[in-house]
Amino acid sequence: MSTADTATLSPLQRFRERINQIKQYEEILGVVYWDMRTGAPRKGIELRSEAVGALSSESFKLSTSDEMGELLAKLNEPELQAELSEIDRRLVAETSKEYERNRKIPPELYREYVVLTSQAESAWEEAKENNDFAGFVPYLEKIIAINRQFIELWGVKTTPYDTLLDMYEPGLTTVELDRLFGELRARLVPLAEQIANSSNKPNTSFLEGTFDKEAQKKFSKLILKDMGYDFEAGRLDESVHPFATGLSIGDVRITTRYLPDDITSALFGTIHEGGHALYEQNINPELARTTLSTGTSMGIHESQSRLWENIVGRSLGFWTRYLPDLKEHFPGQLDGVTAEEFYRGINVVQPSLIRIEADELTYNLHIMIRYEIEKMLFNENLNPRDLPEVWNKKYSEALGITPDNDSEGVLQDVHWSGGAFGYFPSYSLGNMYGAQMMDVARRKLPHLDDQIAAGQLLPLKEWLTEQVYQYGKLLQPAEIIERISGKPLQSSYLCDYLENKYREIYRL
Amino acid sequence: MSTADTATLSPLQRFRERINQIKQYEEILGVVYWDMRTGAPRKGIELRSEAVGALSSESFKLSTSDEMGELLAKLNEPELQAELSEIDRRLVAETSKEYERNRKIPPELYREYVVLTSQAESAWEEAKENNDFAGFVPYLEKIIAINRQFIELWGVKTTPYDTLLDMYEPGLTTVELDRLFGELRARLVPLAEQIANSSNKPNTSFLEGTFDKEAQKKFSKLILKDMGYDFEAGRLDESVHPFATGLSIGDVRITTRYLPDDITSALFGTIHEGGHALYEQNINPELARTTLSTGTSMGIHESQSRLWENIVGRSLGFWTRYLPDLKEHFPGQLDGVTAEEFYRGINVVQPSLIRIEADELTYNLHIMIRYEIEKMLFNENLNPRDLPEVWNKKYSEALGITPDNDSEGVLQDVHWSGGAFGYFPSYSLGNMYGAQMMDVARRKLPHLDDQIAAGQLLPLKEWLTEQVYQYGKLLQPAEIIERISGKPLQSSYLCDYLENKYREIYRL
Repeated sequence: MSTADTATLSPLQRFRERINQIKQYEEILGVVYWDMRTGAPRKGIELRSEAVGALSSESFKLSTSDEMGELLAKLNEPELQAELSEIDRRLVAETSKEYERNRKIPPELYREYVVLTSQAESAWEEAKENNDFAGFVPYLEKIIAINRQFIELWGVKTTPYDTLLDMYEPGLTTVELDRLFGELRARLVPLAEQIANSSNKPNTSFLEGTFDKEAQKKFSKLILKDMGYDFEAGRLDESVHPFATGLSIGDVRITTRYLPDDITSALFGTIHEGGHALYEQNINPELARTTLSTGTSMGIHESQSRLWENIVGRSLGFWTRYLPDLKEHFPGQLDGVTAEEFYRGINVVQPSLIRIEADELTYNLHIMIRYEIEKMLFNENLNPRDLPEVWNKKYSEALGITPDNDSEGVLQDVHWSGGAFGYFPSYSLGNMYGAQMMDVARRKLPHLDDQIAAGQLLPLKEWLTEQVYQYGKLLQPAEIIERISGKPLQSSYLCDYLENKYREIYRL
Repeated sequence: MSTADTATLSPLQRFRERINQIKQYEEILGVVYWDMRTGAPRKGIELRSEAVGALSSESFKLSTSDEMGELLAKLNEPELQAELSEIDRRLVAETSKEYERNRKIPPELYREYVVLTSQAESAWEEAKENNDFAGFVPYLEKIIAINRQFIELWGVKTTPYDTLLDMYEPGLTTVELDRLFGELRARLVPLAEQIANSSNKPNTSFLEGTFDKEAQKKFSKLILKDMGYDFEAGRLDESVHPFATGLSIGDVRITTRYLPDDITSALFGTIHEGGHALYEQNINPELARTTLSTGTSMGIHESQSRLWENIVGRSLGFWTRYLPDLKEHFPGQLDGVTAEEFYRGINVVQPSLIRIEADELTYNLHIMIRYEIEKMLFNENLNPRDLPEVWNKKYSEALGITPDNDSEGVLQDVHWSGGAFGYFPSYSLGNMYGAQMMDVARRKLPHLDDQIAAGQLLPLKEWLTEQVYQYGKLLQPAEIIERISGKPLQSSYLCDYLENKYREIYRL
């Protein structure tokens, strides 16, 4: 749009035009990132990373331009504010916050960071494959150094790490997290110990074997369809590290990974990413062409993936309905297994090294370890070179096991290669949000458990659309949970849920 | 890059920086187009088209900016010209030409056109599927109308259609094409008649049957590897309409389509696109980050796809080597067929309705029909609504057959939905360029035919890299062919080649 044209537009129209542009850049970059993770050829990565850096910079420039500053100043004036719609008011507030934050970052530093993290992901993949932490540590050092610069520029909130947390969960602090994680620890560690001492171990032998990939794919698609995932507004692909990405409301993609010797990995991975995708597919179309058409926080996002994966997907009712289907997909492989046996088998609690393979209970311990390490990196200047040692010590203390090598230790997660420090707590927040939401859902939808046990997953999806999905970023995370349950986020719902579930499974 | 930084750079450095940016936009847009054609979800197309339009506009603005004008003016001054490297000189010349052309297009018109053609491709797909020309004609009318505006703005060269031709084959005119096509017609139509009257029809019965898709894919990959296609700098996917796209030298992708009842479609389609890809993968890396790192014209590009597909891929020597491999991929399906029988079978000449399924000989007649129709559209104001009637009449006259419906008639090609008027002649130019190049190659590489018959395809690839691929856009099409053969493009090589080939096959 040329200057001549914009002169005739109102500040609000010009603002919406710029927001639309920023959203378009995000969408295009989303396609390119998806492509890089689903099979873009190796020899093109270097130039592609440069191009991604350049495009991100353009988008960054738009969001930090003097023009944007002037438009926001105008739209924040009380007179104009009063005339704004709810959507526009929230859009102005959200954009103002981003503007304040981004204006403090020199564009060249931002670009350097984008190129760096884009290359670091490939470097991390290679390092993980070759168990070569030393090869990855130079990237990690640079990423951490730039994040430190960002924190300096943004201003430290109580502690440096608080500044990062706020990016993923607006308003969340280390004080609050320390409290929530403390409460979880107080109830979940004893529970895990009781389980470890229980003599009622579930049988998991039927989960061993080789499971045909095409059949795994078919079954995953069947579940996604029943969840209400719209294949005309998305697609399912394969990638080494499963993810979901909302490019637009009409294009929300998920990936999964099929392991021939593990039927549960792709299955629960797909339901997890499917939960993320339901969120992004069901945002109110009125928010399209704005930066509000995405999830409101990583914690709320993870609440949806983990609610569908665990509270729904690992429930007895769910498998009462779907085990016969699963058996049909793998003839002869699960003969004689009952729904109850299957349910117990997929819910076995077992301290393990890999977060994404962890059970619902010990999963939170994996998250706490990462949270503590991230705090050490940013608040206590832990040297990145010492990460393997710290990592292994913490696993030994919290879970009683130590990785044999860094690939199954400190190198296991993609997050740090992308600079996502402060993201990990979202997973446990998601578990807590999810349990709190489901507590309400069960009361509002009195037949919910029967519906799930009948494969009727749409009533839950519709309720969540009404309560969460439709709003996108229009409501803050705290508003979402308060509106649903009348209370702020609490740890007790997750603890109650896990205690009830595992006491029953382990006959405690 | 901020203004402060650019102030310290020389005009050449600033120019190269801008060119790099334009190239980066092209690369990113290339990823998005590839994605749209290989399975992007339907419900995301509308917003994606808008985003593509916006991004194309940004790139267009860069290439038509006042700054670019000033830089080009400076770099075209004799003093600075003298200091430029060969690459920079050509880059300045090419960019100046583009600049002159693009400056004449109002940015808003350009954006409208990008969004329109992006949507028109989906509309065309639907129209073709439903045999609904009426549903597609409004798009076609708009696309033609805007092309007329472009021609007006650029200035008519002899005829309006000449202006379009020059886009795809710089310097080519209707006068020249009328002559070349006249020569082809004079020798190929009698040849086709002789063939029609021949009693030595090749046996094609062994080409019927059902051919496993996975085996087709495996065999296609085997041939691509032997041709020297680098799978670390590309990938092979499926799409309704096969294509090749060079996103960067390190990322050149091809697609194909596997038909269960036709073994030849995916096979020759893949070799065809593989020929395009070899061109783009083997451009001199010094041209990376410039707009010269692509094929020099569509005619030269098609010479490579059609040379590999036909002159190599449909030769007797090739099948002497590869038929045993093919038989291994389809056990029991081609038993007893000799290389000579297979060769004759895949070279049967048969007037047909669908261009991309046409034999090497009648293919050129399909092109001439499209060329005549495009001239009528732009030079004689043919009403787009009358296209089906004109199309069917011309097919009846030139090939003696008439389509039953528009899906296998005027709706068969994607080109017009993208506004690519003037592209079709490239295919026959490619046939002519290719035959002329191969005439020289056979003299320079005296063992070439033996090598092909031994599956040694790399010497030809290397010779073509040296003669054609490495230069990208550094040389003009006329320079390429003159350097190779010491002569301008001629029709006689193609005619000689086809006469020799088919006289032998049909024992004329």
